[in-house]
Amino acid sequence: MGKVRFSVTTSLDGFIAGPEQSEANPLGIGGKDLHQWVFPLTAWRKSHGLPGGEENASTVIVEEQQHDVGAYVMGRNMFGGYPGPWRTPAWKGWWGDDPPFHKPVFVVTHHAREPLTMAGGTTFHFVTEGPEAALRRARETARNQDIVLTGGANLIQQCLAGGHVDEVGVSVVPVFLGRKERLFANLERSLPRLEQIRVIEAPGVTHLTYRVVR
Amino acid sequence: MGKVRFSVTTSLDGFIAGPEQSEANPLGIGGKDLHQWVFPLTAWRKSHGLPGGEENASTVIVEEQQHDVGAYVMGRNMFGGYPGPWRTPAWKGWWGDDPPFHKPVFVVTHHAREPLTMAGGTTFHFVTEGPEAALRRARETARNQDIVLTGGANLIQQCLAGGHVDEVGVSVVPVFLGRKERLFANLERSLPRLEQIRVIEAPGVTHLTYRVVR
Repeated sequence: MGKVRFSVTTSLDGFIAGPEQSEANPLGIGGKDLHQWVFPLTAWRKSHGLPGGEENASTVIVEEQQHDVGAYVMGRNMFGGYPGPWRTPAWKGWWGDDPPFHKPVFVVTHHAREPLTMAGGTTFHFVTEGPEAALRRARETARNQDIVLTGGANLIQQCLAGGHVDEVGVSVVPVFLGRKERLFANLERSLPRLEQIRVIEAPGVTHLTYRVVR
Repeated sequence: MGKVRFSVTTSLDGFIAGPEQSEANPLGIGGKDLHQWVFPLTAWRKSHGLPGGEENASTVIVEEQQHDVGAYVMGRNMFGGYPGPWRTPAWKGWWGDDPPFHKPVFVVTHHAREPLTMAGGTTFHFVTEGPEAALRRARETARNQDIVLTGGANLIQQCLAGGHVDEVGVSVVPVFLGRKERLFANLERSLPRLEQIRVIEAPGVTHLTYRVVR
C-alpha cells in the first residue's frame, strides 16, 4: 500500500507561516522567504505552467511531491482564503484555474460543499467528517499510490497524533519568523518515533526526511 | 576577533529539553534521547575523561565545541541544579570535579557568588549584570579566540536578540519532545538574518551551521 507522507518547508524556528496572515498575504510576514528555494526550479515552474528554470539539489524534493501520488489531503486553512462558511462566489483555492495537483485533493473542512473540478485533473473534494475520513477517501482513490498531506500545520499535527503518517519531510530554511504557525506543536498525546533516512543540502535550504518507526 | 557561536542539539519539534525537568533529570522526559549521538564518540568521551569510543561524521561537531575556544558563557539554568539563591554546600555544576570545559565559564545568574575553580582548568565565574556583561568579560579572557554559548535556550535567545551571535549551530535529532524548553522562541523583536554554511549528515542526527549576516 502507498505511504502517507508530507514535505513541508519551515523556518529555523519551526514556523510554516509568519504573523498577520491574510487573504492578500497568506503566508504572513516573512512567510514568502520560506519558499525562495523552490521558485527557480524547473520542476516547480513546470507544475505551475511556467517556462524555464534551473535544476539543483532541491529538484528531487519537488519531483517527489508529485511522483507516484494518488491523492492529496489538505486542511481548510491551506485551501483558504478565509475562515468560516463558504461565500458566494465560492473560493476556488490559491492556485488559479489549473492547480498544480492534477489529482483529487481532499479538503478537510467544517463546511460542506460540492466537489470543485478544475482544469488539469485537479478536483477538490470537501470532507466534513475530519482528517481520518479524508484519509480513507484519499486511500480509496490513491489505491497503491501515495497520499501527500499538503498542510497546514493543524492537519499534519492531527495526522501525526493519529498515527497515520509514514514519512516526514522537513525543508529547513535559515530564516526566523518569530511567531505564528508552528509545524510541530500540540503533539503531546502521541509522539511518533522517527528514523533519519535522508539529508539533502541544497542552496539556501536543507531537506530532512524521516521514516515513522512502528 | 573571535566569533561568538553556539552549537545546540534540538528535537525535530525544536526543544532542547523535555517536560518535568528536575535535579535528577535535568533534560526532562525524553531529553536524554537528544544526546545519544554524542555519547559513543571518542572526542566526547575523552573530554569527559572516558576511554575508547568511535569516530563518525559527528566527530567534528564535538571537536569544534572545544577548538579555539577562549571562554564559555552559560545560563544559570544550565549550570543548575535548582532555581533561586545558592544553597550550602553550593552547587558545583553537573560535571563533577573536572568539567569538560577546561577554560573560564561565565555563568549568567541573579545570585552573586565567588568564582569556583575546578580541576582541569575550568573556572566558573558568576556574572550578575546580564548576558552582555558576561560576553564582555568572556571577550577580555578569550581575546582572539571564540566564545561559545553553551545554553540554555534563554541565554541563546537573549544573545541572538541582542545581535551578539556570529554563528548558529543546530543539531537536529529525529525525536519529538512535545513541549517544554524551545531553543528558538521569543525572538520577535530581533530576527537575525542567516546564511546556511554547512550541513553534516551523521548517524541519527543532522548538524546545520549558519552564519549570521550583518
